[in-house]
Amino acid sequence: MNVGVLAVGTELLLGQIIDSNSAWLGGEMAAGGVDSLVQVKVGDNVDRIISQLDRLLSADGDDVDAVIMCGGLGPTHDDLTREAIAAVMGVDLVLDEAVAEVIRVLFESRGRRMAGNNLRQAMVPVGANIIAQTRGTAPGLICPISSFGRPKVIYAVPGVPHEMKEMFHRSILPDLLERSGERSVIASRVLRTWGESESGLNERLDHVIAELDGGGDVPTLAFLASGWEGLKVRLTAKAATIEACRAQLDEWEARLRVEIGDIVFGVDDDTMESVVLEQCRRRELSLAVAESVTGGLVGGRLTGVPGSSDVFLGGIISYATAVKQQVLGVSPGPVVTASAAREMADGVRAAVGADVGLSLTGVAGPGEQEGRRAGTLFVGISGPGFDEVHEVRLPGLRDQMRQFSVITALGMLRTALDTHLPLG
Amino acid sequence: MNVGVLAVGTELLLGQIIDSNSAWLGGEMAAGGVDSLVQVKVGDNVDRIISQLDRLLSADGDDVDAVIMCGGLGPTHDDLTREAIAAVMGVDLVLDEAVAEVIRVLFESRGRRMAGNNLRQAMVPVGANIIAQTRGTAPGLICPISSFGRPKVIYAVPGVPHEMKEMFHRSILPDLLERSGERSVIASRVLRTWGESESGLNERLDHVIAELDGGGDVPTLAFLASGWEGLKVRLTAKAATIEACRAQLDEWEARLRVEIGDIVFGVDDDTMESVVLEQCRRRELSLAVAESVTGGLVGGRLTGVPGSSDVFLGGIISYATAVKQQVLGVSPGPVVTASAAREMADGVRAAVGADVGLSLTGVAGPGEQEGRRAGTLFVGISGPGFDEVHEVRLPGLRDQMRQFSVITALGMLRTALDTHLPLG
Repeated sequence: MNVGVLAVGTELLLGQIIDSNSAWLGGEMAAGGVDSLVQVKVGDNVDRIISQLDRLLSADGDDVDAVIMCGGLGPTHDDLTREAIAAVMGVDLVLDEAVAEVIRVLFESRGRRMAGNNLRQAMVPVGANIIAQTRGTAPGLICPISSFGRPKVIYAVPGVPHEMKEMFHRSILPDLLERSGERSVIASRVLRTWGESESGLNERLDHVIAELDGGGDVPTLAFLASGWEGLKVRLTAKAATIEACRAQLDEWEARLRVEIGDIVFGVDDDTMESVVLEQCRRRELSLAVAESVTGGLVGGRLTGVPGSSDVFLGGIISYATAVKQQVLGVSPGPVVTASAAREMADGVRAAVGADVGLSLTGVAGPGEQEGRRAGTLFVGISGPGFDEVHEVRLPGLRDQMRQFSVITALGMLRTALDTHLPLG
Repeated sequence: MNVGVLAVGTELLLGQIIDSNSAWLGGEMAAGGVDSLVQVKVGDNVDRIISQLDRLLSADGDDVDAVIMCGGLGPTHDDLTREAIAAVMGVDLVLDEAVAEVIRVLFESRGRRMAGNNLRQAMVPVGANIIAQTRGTAPGLICPISSFGRPKVIYAVPGVPHEMKEMFHRSILPDLLERSGERSVIASRVLRTWGESESGLNERLDHVIAELDGGGDVPTLAFLASGWEGLKVRLTAKAATIEACRAQLDEWEARLRVEIGDIVFGVDDDTMESVVLEQCRRRELSLAVAESVTGGLVGGRLTGVPGSSDVFLGGIISYATAVKQQVLGVSPGPVVTASAAREMADGVRAAVGADVGLSLTGVAGPGEQEGRRAGTLFVGISGPGFDEVHEVRLPGLRDQMRQFSVITALGMLRTALDTHLPLG
């Protein structure tokens, strides 16, 4: 099964929007065992859309089994995906009354007047099946087509990412798997790791990977880089039922944790900050931060998590030396030092009245500070009955160094809490 | 002149990396008056790369005049762009001694041993011109080719964005313009605006746009959305010399400023935070922030600007009510109010010893707080001889609301400084 992706929209070619939909679809299809060997962007021009569709589907073109089209399903005259599909299928577009009714009701429920052109979204090529719209006004389409005597299919989904993603999982992926004769269910689990390089991870998982490559009812394993957020290890299981998938995932997650449990900080949608907040919550600890080099980024990330306010009290952005000394009680002298980090962590704990204080002081560059190179970071942690200070050398230019500092400090706090205050 | 973009890399199809290079190239070409009507992603497979190149260039394919290939120029066996181009040109690859020497010197200067496969990067199709490497090890290529008797060209650049961008501006765009018979120079200027919708901006610039559409030696104008960062208005001038371009841009920038000067906060690489810092610097004012709803994001952005430390002293992340009261002196009672914002701004000015205090308190959601809806924001500004409080209703979910809060508050501070402390 080989699937082409055709992203439609002049704004994509002009660089006004970056086409992240195709990449997402490619990743999801790969996890489902479906190949996506070619992905194309084309503008809002019906002839060019038709010609790209023809090319993707034809035996002397890319000869894909299916094309997923993203975008061009809106209500305006620039939205030409429906017309192009009908032309390639050699059929007419007809108004689907059921779809039209959903659109009318949607407008009424929002108390808005519906402009007539919204009914363009209810036009459907004869012979197409509808993917019912649940979030936006436009439905998706499943359009069977015969190409040189072979049955193929064109899918169309809106370009709005959350509509596209929902329709892909609800309708397109199951349809693709059914067409490929694949009756299995697919499920994934992501282990989030921090603190090991890709080659290091590969080495530590060497024989687990060998076992998985051996075949049988086992998941596949993939590493996904996510920049300074660490590496994701994704297990994808294929089985007759979702329960059987979960059993495979549980078994192999446990197997992986034996090898790399020390660097696994979370699962699936966990983030380092959500994990740290949960660790504090379970220990009934409140948290405060003292930030110099990061200037508020750590607090910004922690407060990005809904419900963080029961743990995170706040902090001091002590960018200037005077603020470190006067508000946090840091001693006179250099401030990119272990002792300054320690005093900042203690100081913010006291100033804010928190159980745990986390501090960061360092040099983001460009240029040195106090004779220390850009990339120098000190992290201080002050908690009930324990404290730690770490010195780290980070890579990167100013922005990267600061982002690395955030995740590094949060990662150190995670480890410190587990070490000093283990849970039963 | 119609240019296709071919991004090469299996990691792009698997969604491990999002192809932002093509979008960037599309935007830059559009600014230069060059069409890019089709953009394709293909994996690291030499046959598929060749077939996509053929398709893009052939008269019964997309029939583009030029293809820009991104990626696949590295040293490993997966890097197949050079081989594919040589095959399409029908020529051999030969080692270019000058390029090889640059690679050797680069490794020596970094004190690293050069693995033999790095010399793959010095292999060049016979007849190709080199775009000298200045940042990475791989050079770019300019490869003339004849397709059905018409002269065409394939460009190849590394996939690393900063290498790609530098080579595009230094060599590819000038070469494209020369091939298109275009002897002009192109220059752009971006006016950054905040506080007006796209349709509002369109309306206010209605007759300026009409004048520009009238033709003559005038720039083109485009609106570029940049999410919560406001709208960019880009002028692009084409003229015989760079001086003539600049004269056009100066004239029409002034013309635009007559209409929308109130919402233009900066030019080109200016950001709202760099502009606010510069405003304070010119008035010799120091700045502090008190953040509740944004939890440190404002401080994080301000300190992202190199050299911010001469203006920005720091601040208080007063997420918990107790911190607002104890550290900032906010009166007991509700904290999502105008008076709390005022007290926070005054409080942080005093606590940090700054000339200007900026505060934010609001509801990010999900859910209400103190009976106020998610999206409610109060901004307080306290300066020498003036203070302001604003109430705003912002759209969006938690993350969007918080990002909008940051730019909104900084934008208000910008306006307040200009209003209360105008510069001579």
